[in-house]
Amino acid sequence: MDGTHSALRAHGYAELTMRDIADEAGVSKAALHYHFDGKHDLLLSFLDRLLERFEARIEDVSGEDPEERLLSLAETVMLPPADGDPHEFRTALLEIEAQAPYDEAYRTRLERFDEAFADRVRAILAAGVADGTFDESVDPDESSSFVVTYVRGARTRNVAVGASLDDALAAFRRYVRSTLLADPPEVTTE
Amino acid sequence: MDGTHSALRAHGYAELTMRDIADEAGVSKAALHYHFDGKHDLLLSFLDRLLERFEARIEDVSGEDPEERLLSLAETVMLPPADGDPHEFRTALLEIEAQAPYDEAYRTRLERFDEAFADRVRAILAAGVADGTFDESVDPDESSSFVVTYVRGARTRNVAVGASLDDALAAFRRYVRSTLLADPPEVTTE
Repeated sequence: MDGTHSALRAHGYAELTMRDIADEAGVSKAALHYHFDGKHDLLLSFLDRLLERFEARIEDVSGEDPEERLLSLAETVMLPPADGDPHEFRTALLEIEAQAPYDEAYRTRLERFDEAFADRVRAILAAGVADGTFDESVDPDESSSFVVTYVRGARTRNVAVGASLDDALAAFRRYVRSTLLADPPEVTTE
Repeated sequence: MDGTHSALRAHGYAELTMRDIADEAGVSKAALHYHFDGKHDLLLSFLDRLLERFEARIEDVSGEDPEERLLSLAETVMLPPADGDPHEFRTALLEIEAQAPYDEAYRTRLERFDEAFADRVRAILAAGVADGTFDESVDPDESSSFVVTYVRGARTRNVAVGASLDDALAAFRRYVRSTLLADPPEVTTE
């Protein structure tokens, strides 16, 4: 799995070969073919493992209250984790996303990422409405979809045109404060 | 240009050949090669023409006040236009976006799309703050970036996992009402 990650970073998705993955993993091409029916099959296993890690990471976000947990979750999904997940890898993921309409198996995996993230946001929003952190008018279904859409946009825009993820995150924090919180802080206009 | 559009819809970006484009355009491959130095050069011209059309379309949005113009603009960029721009074509565009980090010429074009859209949103927001439609605390720079990021996310999420554009637009309308308007309507909790 680490070899696939490195190979995707180094070669991108379109150009990736089993040879590249074998080289990065330090195994023979024959060994790779023994376990996987080619690049597509291997990438599906890779996406499955990635999804498990993603679910563990988003389950793990902490914070004193629903607002902190929501911000921490957005940060986890938007910013690269401390141990890597750099720009090249996200670019390769976007290539796979662009293949999803042609490829049912990819699409099914990507839908699970999307749903896992949306479910987690929805649960935090619902808890926050229940405990009075978020305004009672917040609809967890709709707002979770809004948040997932925004975060997805921040990642794509970062890959495609280099827009800053830190700026996107700062704007998200202000959105949470001004739109979701039950008692938005007074806005200063200088 | 119409031939390129049709060929991208039919074949996607990665698989596209000069032969496909010549066939769709009803011209000879030789004629195409006379005008363009291959697929990459042709697609750059295509993106330039697409950008001109995009700028004309977003310049053209109308509405009685800044709120209506902003909603109309988001609708123009999110929903397919009446004359086409269907799912297949957006998928091909996402493939090109995923190539942008590897390709300076694509990236430059994509940045222009992003900037043209952000400029238009910013101008509408600034006009709306000036005439009292939008709250005086709205920062046109930051909010335009937020809006562009959200719209980008709606398009990518639609291509990658089939999320509904109509739902994304409905959620955007509520965001505008609850977050940007100077006098948000009373929220009903039903």
